[in-house]
Amino acid sequence: MTQFSEAELQALMAKAVREVRATNPMAPSITNTVTQAFVANAQLAVGGSAAMVYLPDEGQAVAEAAGATYINLGTLMPVYEQTVPVTARALHEAHKPWVLDPVGIGIGSLRTQLLQAVRPFAPTLVRANASEVIALANLWQLQVGEAGDSDGPRGVDATHGVDAAEAAAVALARFTGGAVAVSGATDLVTDGETVARLKGGSPLMECITGSGCSLGGVAAVYSCVADPLVAALTATAAYNRAGSRAAARADGPGSFQVTFLDELHALTAEDVAETFLHLHPAE
Amino acid sequence: MTQFSEAELQALMAKAVREVRATNPMAPSITNTVTQAFVANAQLAVGGSAAMVYLPDEGQAVAEAAGATYINLGTLMPVYEQTVPVTARALHEAHKPWVLDPVGIGIGSLRTQLLQAVRPFAPTLVRANASEVIALANLWQLQVGEAGDSDGPRGVDATHGVDAAEAAAVALARFTGGAVAVSGATDLVTDGETVARLKGGSPLMECITGSGCSLGGVAAVYSCVADPLVAALTATAAYNRAGSRAAARADGPGSFQVTFLDELHALTAEDVAETFLHLHPAE
Amino acid sequence: MTQFSEAELQALMAKAVREVRATNPMAPSITNTVTQAFVANAQLAVGGSAAMVYLPDEGQAVAEAAGATYINLGTLMPVYEQTVPVTARALHEAHKPWVLDPVGIGIGSLRTQLLQAVRPFAPTLVRANASEVIALANLWQLQVGEAGDSDGPRGVDATHGVDAAEAAAVALARFTGGAVAVSGATDLVTDGETVARLKGGSPLMECITGSGCSLGGVAAVYSCVADPLVAALTATAAYNRAGSRAAARADGPGSFQVTFLDELHALTAEDVAETFLHLHPAE
Repeated sequence: MTQFSEAELQALMAKAVREVRATNPMAPSITNTVTQAFVANAQLAVGGSAAMVYLPDEGQAVAEAAGATYINLGTLMPVYEQTVPVTARALHEAHKPWVLDPVGIGIGSLRTQLLQAVRPFAPTLVRANASEVIALANLWQLQVGEAGDSDGPRGVDATHGVDAAEAAAVALARFTGGAVAVSGATDLVTDGETVARLKGGSPLMECITGSGCSLGGVAAVYSCVADPLVAALTATAAYNRAGSRAAARADGPGSFQVTFLDELHALTAEDVAETFLHLHPAE
Repeated sequence: MTQFSEAELQALMAKAVREVRATNPMAPSITNTVTQAFVANAQLAVGGSAAMVYLPDEGQAVAEAAGATYINLGTLMPVYEQTVPVTARALHEAHKPWVLDPVGIGIGSLRTQLLQAVRPFAPTLVRANASEVIALANLWQLQVGEAGDSDGPRGVDATHGVDAAEAAAVALARFTGGAVAVSGATDLVTDGETVARLKGGSPLMECITGSGCSLGGVAAVYSCVADPLVAALTATAAYNRAGSRAAARADGPGSFQVTFLDELHALTAEDVAETFLHLHPAE
Repeated sequence: MTQFSEAELQALMAKAVREVRATNPMAPSITNTVTQAFVANAQLAVGGSAAMVYLPDEGQAVAEAAGATYINLGTLMPVYEQTVPVTARALHEAHKPWVLDPVGIGIGSLRTQLLQAVRPFAPTLVRANASEVIALANLWQLQVGEAGDSDGPRGVDATHGVDAAEAAAVALARFTGGAVAVSGATDLVTDGETVARLKGGSPLMECITGSGCSLGGVAAVYSCVADPLVAALTATAAYNRAGSRAAARADGPGSFQVTFLDELHALTAEDVAETFLHLHPAE
């Protein structure tokens, strides 16, 4: 993959925003029941389309028909044992982009089993918090050193900052050949060659459920029209900008969530493109 | 069924609005996990009660106890294979009204199987977008001609306008002996004899998930107190009026969804009754 | 359990509010799909953390790791047959607090089976409406007399006032050795020795789905840092105060729900502590 300059990436991000608004791409999800509605509403707000399914043949069908797919392992149901592997395989075989959110990694045996099962069908984009990125790199035995000895996530929350996850994120991106988006107070996005750090958003993001999940869903929407690195950067930049603006108008987490969707909907290509990316080469 | 004049229908719609507020009827749902909360909140906003279930004996129990039931095939889980047919059968045998939303028709084998299975237990009201109405009429082999050759829905979104679905809607209504509500920029409601076209709402309705699903749930609430045609008209008119008013006050899809529930809650019988119905006889 | 004065309880409630904000305790849930997002958002708004699971080994894992757990029987899925009993057993064996919401009691056979199965693993806190509390006391054969002959809940709604449920609530609390919170226009909280009545909230609480469920989830958050009686009082007082304030600013149920989360987030220990408890000894 070529190394892009910040200006080149910003131009590609603006293009992705415009192309999604122009083409209304479908990015179906196999995702958790808690934040599904917010995922769908965020996908619609940026100009995409949403559809959620649980059954194996439905996962396969929507994956093959769609531009990109979102798989989030939040609230596993027994049928996911079939659905997740066949869908990931279908995506891989059809060379379709897909976004993995390994939320809750470490809780229960099925989650571990599914994360092992999808390893050969490498997601084009991994979206997670720092602790989950480290845990996934370890689970997939990507040899990221020290981080392997640290604590895992606590439930669905991060216990690490993004800096601690840089090596794991780079290793994951190199393994998948795609990109990794690590969400945190500062966000880190990498394709294994270049590492970008993006700022913005709001602490209120941590006070609502689904900010991470819906970012994954929006990254899947942008993955319909852009390569993994650009999709990850665009979604992250959109969230940071809309999050900062929403926080300025919100009275608390309830009004923040509402205003955030309004701001996501109002976001222009220019808003997203003027995000600083703070690029540096991956080690 | 007698042909009603516009004024007669408007009076019946006003009566339905008042009767729901006075009696708080229970309209349980077997519905998808994505938009469940919005369905329930919309049902409560118009004065009804909500309860969602998944298990076969629970579907049967709530269907027999309730005024009308809502079945929406959005996010199928394996247990729906049992639940949907036994519930539809129980409704049919108890002569209870029920609303079917065939969302996602065409995706996966279970959805097709279930739609075939409930055919003999004819829903009193079908609520869907134009593409889904055409697909359902075709699946049930109702011979609606040209439309049979057209493309199906794309995921959960319509690819047809309501005019293209008029013949299919009329055929469905004649087959079930109930009514069909086709949602779109203009909405079409028919009982197979009379066709009404209703205007209103807002493009923002397409920017939130669940506007169609929750309309189906609200139609089930009105089905507790009114015949299928009046229930379909009342729900559609309520959505159009509340949608137009909410759009005038909203900054985007987030605030639209919130304001829409407020407007639905504030809606009077008079608001609903002054809706133009643009009636014409079905061909 | 010692009898506390109103002032002592108010001080403990203030302490619970502060401790949750300081420690961000994790209170996982096995709960219904309809109101999950609202439960999680309410838990986050008061300063707690949320995680929802469905699978047996996940229920056991999160229960053992967490401060307190919330089990709500709203929308049962087949896997709950395994998950609920093993989780309740794990909680009981680990002497961990847990909150039971027997929502929908009386609907379907699995719900009855699960409520019987968890009886030996006594929840430290039961949160329900009056009709559900009466039905649970009867199901567990706690001999509460007259109430046993009355009608059960209608779906998920109460058909009784809290006064009618006082004997059942006291019997339940004595049986479990924990506390019971009965939600209604006036709320009743008891540990089997003392009965408190709390006022506040808003009729709009009945116009949104999940006000009861999310109160249960928030009670689980406070159960991480306080004994069952104090946790039940704190959660109830927080809901009443935030509910009253939100109603004063809301235009309807949509904006009420949003504003309620903002108010819950803004609530101080002092706000909660100045709640009148109207204590009297249980008969």
